[in-house]
Amino acid sequence: MAKAIIYRAEDLFDFMVRFFEKLGVPKDRAEITAEILQSADLRGVSSHGIIRLQTYYGSRLQKGLIDPLANNEIVRESPSSIGIDGKNGLGQIAARDAMQRCIDKARNSGVAMVTVRNSNHYGIAGYYAMMALEHDMIGISFTNAQPLVAPTFGRKRLLGTNPIAVAAPAHNEKPFVLDMATSIVPIGKVTVFEKAGDNLPDGWAVDSTGQTTTDPKSVLNGGALFPLGGPELLRGYKGYGLALWVDIFSGVLSGAAFGRNVADPVHLSNANVGHFFAAMRLDAFRDPDEFKQDMDRLFQQLKTAEKAIGHDRIYIHGEKEFELTEKYKMEGIPLLEEVVKSLVEAGKNINVPFDLSSLGEKKINPAYSGN
Amino acid sequence: MAKAIIYRAEDLFDFMVRFFEKLGVPKDRAEITAEILQSADLRGVSSHGIIRLQTYYGSRLQKGLIDPLANNEIVRESPSSIGIDGKNGLGQIAARDAMQRCIDKARNSGVAMVTVRNSNHYGIAGYYAMMALEHDMIGISFTNAQPLVAPTFGRKRLLGTNPIAVAAPAHNEKPFVLDMATSIVPIGKVTVFEKAGDNLPDGWAVDSTGQTTTDPKSVLNGGALFPLGGPELLRGYKGYGLALWVDIFSGVLSGAAFGRNVADPVHLSNANVGHFFAAMRLDAFRDPDEFKQDMDRLFQQLKTAEKAIGHDRIYIHGEKEFELTEKYKMEGIPLLEEVVKSLVEAGKNINVPFDLSSLGEKKINPAYSGN
Repeated sequence: MAKAIIYRAEDLFDFMVRFFEKLGVPKDRAEITAEILQSADLRGVSSHGIIRLQTYYGSRLQKGLIDPLANNEIVRESPSSIGIDGKNGLGQIAARDAMQRCIDKARNSGVAMVTVRNSNHYGIAGYYAMMALEHDMIGISFTNAQPLVAPTFGRKRLLGTNPIAVAAPAHNEKPFVLDMATSIVPIGKVTVFEKAGDNLPDGWAVDSTGQTTTDPKSVLNGGALFPLGGPELLRGYKGYGLALWVDIFSGVLSGAAFGRNVADPVHLSNANVGHFFAAMRLDAFRDPDEFKQDMDRLFQQLKTAEKAIGHDRIYIHGEKEFELTEKYKMEGIPLLEEVVKSLVEAGKNINVPFDLSSLGEKKINPAYSGN
Repeated sequence: MAKAIIYRAEDLFDFMVRFFEKLGVPKDRAEITAEILQSADLRGVSSHGIIRLQTYYGSRLQKGLIDPLANNEIVRESPSSIGIDGKNGLGQIAARDAMQRCIDKARNSGVAMVTVRNSNHYGIAGYYAMMALEHDMIGISFTNAQPLVAPTFGRKRLLGTNPIAVAAPAHNEKPFVLDMATSIVPIGKVTVFEKAGDNLPDGWAVDSTGQTTTDPKSVLNGGALFPLGGPELLRGYKGYGLALWVDIFSGVLSGAAFGRNVADPVHLSNANVGHFFAAMRLDAFRDPDEFKQDMDRLFQQLKTAEKAIGHDRIYIHGEKEFELTEKYKMEGIPLLEEVVKSLVEAGKNINVPFDLSSLGEKKINPAYSGN
């Protein structure tokens, strides 16, 4: 357990906006980027939230490695698709604009898909998929990322944790929001175990020889993450296939970097990250009300089914995160003490003081976070 | 190891065509259905091949539970999508027609998606995704299926092994063909272990209380399969989310059955299986030649990377299956003795003798098959 300090969501949002503005990001873009980062913290996916403010965004803006004024450029277009060049702008700005265009396309044509190349880390994949929900559409969002995952029978980091996000509305139930890395865990989770001096659960990652290891140090020093499924016996090649699928759609199809060539967000070169989006009008296939009522029925089947011994609840994907968002909006967002320290430091460097008043403290388990 | 008898692919194909014709399937449809079943055997996915001839198709045709003359009916249409009612026809016939229409739509609009309701077991998912390849398109194919998988924290069979198939062309390399059940293994694999008197690997499946078990009997008697990932610690809820995604797109969006309501192929009621297809023109996003050359580069990165200790090859998805297809086309397809017996029996019942001359015998490991 580690100490966390609780802050009002609005206060953290305002700090992020001031931070981005100071680094040359126009106000409307600063607000969008802050909103998307905060949506991760509110959903409990703290690995993609304010914790990355300096490392993934601030430092790159300061070094001129991200262009805060870049505008998406359309390089290909068909009645139901767009290929976009993000011109090395903020990933959030490129991605939100791309998904908005995708939704607009789908409104006319039924379904649509959009790729983005030459972008940067776009934060939480689920945000963009969820943009479709208010339009009575299903949304999909993929991105590639810096290499951390070894392919089955390999030992090198060759693929990102390449997430898949899918959002689909229901009627009375919360929407389905699948938002998952295609690795078993993110690399940040291994760091948490290393800092705590704990062994990893068996089957999360490999060492530099490609063998399963429970030692976080040997993963961080030249090892790699397992794709979802883990070793061959448990069909880790399926998770490897999912990661490859995401890279083909986000990296290869868009014309971005792919595989081991996607740059780390702390690397001193253009990241050339690629994204993929899809939007699908429900009424292109079925009466939307009937669809949503059947979604409720499916979720009820699952939620009311008999539980495994020792468990009293079956979740639908996104449900926990919606509950957490309500809670955090009311009670504030807990940030680990070390994260607060890094924000104070980052703010001091550019003369944007992190001078928020806290709502209190609590103990949290850093091993539970991220997806 | 078990005894297998080897037959010419063409001879098995001809037998299947005669079999289907005898059961009232017109010749052209019999040929399509036989071709799709055989594509599974040729790819080494014998669980979806001729082994199912009687149980999934023959017996249902005989009982009038599948309409061999049904024609797909369009119930919704937009410039880039179609919602189809399969009218309880053969799954292969409904699905192949649906994917063909999807490809035709994509040719005009850039990308397209098609759902099918009121269909039956369609065989191997990858076949339909691969139809896109010769058109310089990417193809996607999902289907739901009878419930066999327990959701995370559950114990009941509520979701199918709902496969995901994605096919994308390369230049000199073989195309990427991901074709995976979203469970760790198919139920047939558990049966193989039970027959052999062997224990299951830890983490494949649960017993009737929802606990992990290595006893195949307790899985087959009231237990369930784990979704990809297995237990919560290894993020089985991601595999559960993938299975749910496939059911939402195939079952709910199409208006088919979903969840525990999808009928088993041996059940005496309409199965009302649902499918989902997508096709994407490469040139809607990028120059197709550049795309294919980058696919080669990505595959080369993976294939030439350093291997884990004890391994000498990293595979791209579909590669093994293409090699097997070439081999089986040349050397014949090995069928387990018990499969041959069941074909002799099924043929005898409807006076279509299974009188093929064999090319020889070999020992095979039935634990290696299926995906």
